[in-house]
Amino acid sequence: MPATKIDLPPHNARAYLEPGPIVLISSRHGDETNIMTLGWHVVLDFSPALVGCMISGGNHSFALIRASGECVINLPTLDMIDTVVRIGNSSGRTVDKFAQNDLIADPAARVDAPLIRQCHANFECRLVDDAMVERYNFFIFEIVKAHRARRPKHPQTIHYTGDGEFMVAGKIVSRRSLFRPGMLGNGRS
Amino acid sequence: MPATKIDLPPHNARAYLEPGPIVLISSRHGDETNIMTLGWHVVLDFSPALVGCMISGGNHSFALIRASGECVINLPTLDMIDTVVRIGNSSGRTVDKFAQNDLIADPAARVDAPLIRQCHANFECRLVDDAMVERYNFFIFEIVKAHRARRPKHPQTIHYTGDGEFMVAGKIVSRRSLFRPGMLGNGRS
Repeated sequence: MPATKIDLPPHNARAYLEPGPIVLISSRHGDETNIMTLGWHVVLDFSPALVGCMISGGNHSFALIRASGECVINLPTLDMIDTVVRIGNSSGRTVDKFAQNDLIADPAARVDAPLIRQCHANFECRLVDDAMVERYNFFIFEIVKAHRARRPKHPQTIHYTGDGEFMVAGKIVSRRSLFRPGMLGNGRS
Repeated sequence: MPATKIDLPPHNARAYLEPGPIVLISSRHGDETNIMTLGWHVVLDFSPALVGCMISGGNHSFALIRASGECVINLPTLDMIDTVVRIGNSSGRTVDKFAQNDLIADPAARVDAPLIRQCHANFECRLVDDAMVERYNFFIFEIVKAHRARRPKHPQTIHYTGDGEFMVAGKIVSRRSLFRPGMLGNGRS
């Protein structure tokens, strides 16, 4: 489990989200807290650091996020895969997902929703545009504060391919020499 | 290079897109054809098979896609990584990206934009909602026809982490036994 975390510039959250990992969304409204598993997210801008999430209206988290206008996007790794599946297959209406999964809720800096300590990185989000929520359940968030573990540099994220199977993040290949200088940057820092 | 391809049900395109690979978007309007590299996409629904793409207004492809209301999302693999970077670092205003990169344009079934033969899979798309284009450059497409290579089952997709580095798709881990039956399906078929 990451012992301590360091700040990450929000615009560099793309380095963790653009590769397409499964994430855990934590939310809080009033005295209700929940976690959901999500694979349908997209980076929309660097600065402000915008990310879009398709959160199905059937999820208990949908109401908490819509009412509070906040959430935290947490980045789990391979060691948490059973927890990720269990969270995706249970409902926060009947289960306390932090307690059931021995997850530790750390306070966030800018939102009321908690950080999941065991995750490699945490992105505190404020809802900035709900115009596509009615039609597509699509929320646009701004990442207002980001945290990452000091190591490893390349976490073993898990990527859902459907039908109960996950692809695990593999080797890293650099092609920096082929890029125009202006196209570099915004990596993992 | 995939010799022949077979049909894929459009709702199973999620198995290829949800894990977050870099894709190549091919487009055509009138007698202009182009290709761009894209990492900012998201699955939005199974049926209809909706996918959202953030296509920056600075891209030559932006105008072709907006005018034609169509594109093809093509799935490249590790053997194409140099081509992917070269396409992402050049402009279709000055370069024929098919010719420059020895890519073969195959006719699509339902759209005018061409399929890139060398890619593992091809998703023919129609623009169904441009309400978020002005504000976020965010296009919502419906996949109306999908093709995939017969093998391998698990293609070596590449996932961009910024700063000139890519993560290559790694091992496959199944957790089918932990899923509720109703949550399975929509895998690679």
